[in-house]
Amino acid sequence: MTGNRIESRQFREIRAAHYQISLIIETKIISLILIVEKVQISPRKPALVPDHTGDKTMADFIPPAHNTASPFADMRGHHVAVRTPDLETAKRWYVEKLDFRVVAEWDYADEQLAYLAPATDDHFYVEILGGGDPSPADVRPYTDLGDSLKYAGYHHFCLNVASVDATVEALRARGVTIVTEPFELLAISRRLAFFCDPFGNLIELAEVLP
Amino acid sequence: MTGNRIESRQFREIRAAHYQISLIIETKIISLILIVEKVQISPRKPALVPDHTGDKTMADFIPPAHNTASPFADMRGHHVAVRTPDLETAKRWYVEKLDFRVVAEWDYADEQLAYLAPATDDHFYVEILGGGDPSPADVRPYTDLGDSLKYAGYHHFCLNVASVDATVEALRARGVTIVTEPFELLAISRRLAFFCDPFGNLIELAEVLP
Repeated sequence: MTGNRIESRQFREIRAAHYQISLIIETKIISLILIVEKVQISPRKPALVPDHTGDKTMADFIPPAHNTASPFADMRGHHVAVRTPDLETAKRWYVEKLDFRVVAEWDYADEQLAYLAPATDDHFYVEILGGGDPSPADVRPYTDLGDSLKYAGYHHFCLNVASVDATVEALRARGVTIVTEPFELLAISRRLAFFCDPFGNLIELAEVLP
Repeated sequence: MTGNRIESRQFREIRAAHYQISLIIETKIISLILIVEKVQISPRKPALVPDHTGDKTMADFIPPAHNTASPFADMRGHHVAVRTPDLETAKRWYVEKLDFRVVAEWDYADEQLAYLAPATDDHFYVEILGGGDPSPADVRPYTDLGDSLKYAGYHHFCLNVASVDATVEALRARGVTIVTEPFELLAISRRLAFFCDPFGNLIELAEVLP
């Protein structure tokens, strides 16, 4: 009976210890699962595409599957270029009004060029093609956004933002010309607005609606 | 003794069962840790500027530090838009000649629009602004790249590629008009070329030289 009692006590103690260990293991597993889920949730969520900094996701169109067999599978958008009478005016405006960063500046023949990047986007540049003789002529004057569509060719570039209204107000406070006040385009689930640089070149703002 | 033997047997059986369970749990934990590591490793890679798909790096200009304090810290380049007489011609050309993917199509008033994405780049779109009355007029004819610089406004957009020469040959084989044959611009360590869409809109190719 003594042996029995000892074994029974050992038995109970071992069971209790195992129970505690299994509780600890369970807690660890749950933490791990939570980490895995937290890390994996964003790429797996349907209808969410991470922006290219990887630090934010937005509900938006899911692009079709990559065509990796294409001879052009290596094409990556790098910049949009704008021809302006001088580099300095354009550069100063992008830096002072939009907080863009100057990535590089160089000369090419009698022109002065620069790559400019948004405040925290390292993967989309604006290239300024400034100076040169003859000075570039503005052959596409317009009165408003609708009127600007009467000309063929590159029309604007677009910056996604968290809030079109907040961005428009911040731009207005810095004296930037707003060409089209914020409006919603439900066909693409976006709130949009247009402003322009000192030469009238249009820039779109887009906020993906939830 | 019988009771003792029964408890001893139970004891051994329970220990064996617990051992097996702990082995299973250990295996599960290891798998979970491997998943966590696999998922977390890639964003941690150091050094060179990764392109925005994260699957390739290129030696290139290092952009200045992010200005996270800017009210425009959320600006992300999304697309460049081109105004064309009709959506179909532009869309077909991008899809058939450049292997772009159609991300979205929609109507706005009497116009037809689309977002198109390069074969494997989900973070830089071309927007086609097609159709509408009046049909957009081409007020910027040019004879060559140098001549095209006489007009102010958006001039081209640029796609980075692994080899400008290989891309130019593949485009030529598909009947695409090459406007400027490959040349090197050492000021920015790049090999460049220009081609155009059916409406004469210029597209630059850039290869970052080692």
